Amino acid sequence: MRDFDEHNITDAVVASLGEAKDARLKTVMTSLIRHLHDFVRDVDLSFDEWNSAIDFLTRTGQMCSDKRQEFILLSDTLGVSMLVDAINHRMPKGATETTVLGPFYVASAPDEPPGADISRGLKGEPLLVQGTVSSSDGTPLAGATIDVWQADADGYYDVQRPEPQSSLLRARFRTDAGGRFSFKSIMPAFYPIPDDGPVGEMLGALGRHPNRPAHIHFMIAADGYETLITHIFNAESPYLDSDAVFGVKSSLAATFVEVTGHGSGRLLNHHFGLKPLSRTAL
Amino acid sequence: MRDFDEHNITDAVVASLGEAKDARLKTVMTSLIRHLHDFVRDVDLSFDEWNSAIDFLTRTGQMCSDKRQEFILLSDTLGVSMLVDAINHRMPKGATETTVLGPFYVASAPDEPPGADISRGLKGEPLLVQGTVSSSDGTPLAGATIDVWQADADGYYDVQRPEPQSSLLRARFRTDAGGRFSFKSIMPAFYPIPDDGPVGEMLGALGRHPNRPAHIHFMIAADGYETLITHIFNAESPYLDSDAVFGVKSSLAATFVEVTGHGSGRLLNHHFGLKPLSRTAL
Repeated sequence: MRDFDEHNITDAVVASLGEAKDARLKTVMTSLIRHLHDFVRDVDLSFDEWNSAIDFLTRTGQMCSDKRQEFILLSDTLGVSMLVDAINHRMPKGATETTVLGPFYVASAPDEPPGADISRGLKGEPLLVQGTVSSSDGTPLAGATIDVWQADADGYYDVQRPEPQSSLLRARFRTDAGGRFSFKSIMPAFYPIPDDGPVGEMLGALGRHPNRPAHIHFMIAADGYETLITHIFNAESPYLDSDAVFGVKSSLAATFVEVTGHGSGRLLNHHFGLKPLSRTAL
Repeated sequence: MRDFDEHNITDAVVASLGEAKDARLKTVMTSLIRHLHDFVRDVDLSFDEWNSAIDFLTRTGQMCSDKRQEFILLSDTLGVSMLVDAINHRMPKGATETTVLGPFYVASAPDEPPGADISRGLKGEPLLVQGTVSSSDGTPLAGATIDVWQADADGYYDVQRPEPQSSLLRARFRTDAGGRFSFKSIMPAFYPIPDDGPVGEMLGALGRHPNRPAHIHFMIAADGYETLITHIFNAESPYLDSDAVFGVKSSLAATFVEVTGHGSGRLLNHHFGLKPLSRTAL
């Protein structure tokens, strides 16, 4: 194999995968190579642009740490994360839609009893969240675990605070026999994704803002069901129609109802439906 | 913009570039987004595969240092570097073909007089290189600068040695009034690209070897001409037909002639043609 030009080099690179043992890897890489080469040809990529791309990818990798995942931000802001989400979650009727996990999930959130206050005294507009969890066919699910996490009234998650502080606005609940759960909190604010790195530079160069509309994250797990990863957005938030990561679905935008009088604040009342795991034939 | 599914999300991401001021950046990113999304849809990318990709790109970025450019290796081994080279060097008749710069070029190689020995006593089969440089129309070019660099008899460049050692098998020459140059050296060996990082892992998983056929690098510059970046390959080397970076062109494979008798060794005699710079209309 030699004498490659801009037309025949693609087949040559694909042919070099002839000895690959993993058939799926070969399929994925073949498609990647063809699409990547088509992109380079379509735009007649210059050397300077190629150099800029190498530099951008390098800086993106070097921005990553145990507290920051810049490549996930890149995937999110180019719509790739939500595309992968859509492909992997073709949901039945009655099942809640999914959206991105985001970079702020922590696996070890504390278990809390029904009605607990996860704001732990942080200032903000009081919020009561109550809801139910059922199978997509409507059967209530008892004992489902519900991880919740959210930003504070200034748009920050606990893990973003200068002094590390765990489990602010973050906890795990369980549904009761009727599939019900509830907790107290404060209203979350909209916020920018971390934009002091290469991805922030990219958004700036593209004339895009880095903001996400206000939301609460939910991860709901029950035996025999696909774990649901989603948000509930505040239907009154700015940026609902220009989420920097393309994560908004109408079914996930809910009204946080104003409640006046004694203990005034907001109420979110929401139902979640889980998709049964598909069984493989015996 | 909300309620994106696997089909309409691509247009939504492209629409988000509406405010981009730089028309070329907008064109490039629009094409990148469309091809990247098409790839994800074509292979029905799973969450686990997406996670592996994020991890691979992160480790590739973190492998980069001032001595190692893993993203260039990735571009080289996926054929992207040679594709960009082909697109940017549509050469006229009489002009030498180009190939990749590679990661071992050093800008500050020492000037040497005609006939100098760049091996500086390293062991290996003696080699005399002599050549001419002309315009693609055949006019000899006096005073052209010729940067040369090559691997040693074990396949290593000076910058890869454990103790940093500059300017072994590396120098800059100038053509005389007749466009001629010459230097002494040793025969270069074939070698593997650095394969102890993510790119090496990828090649292994794809059943590909990391080797490049033996070659000498040339970078030739003259006023009024496009700087020529190329290699001359040893036409007898292994891996000529499976170069890990797809860099071989038949016109760049030359016979390093065996010379016997007094001062036995090899002779490479090669002619280089440069492409005149295109002038923009006044």
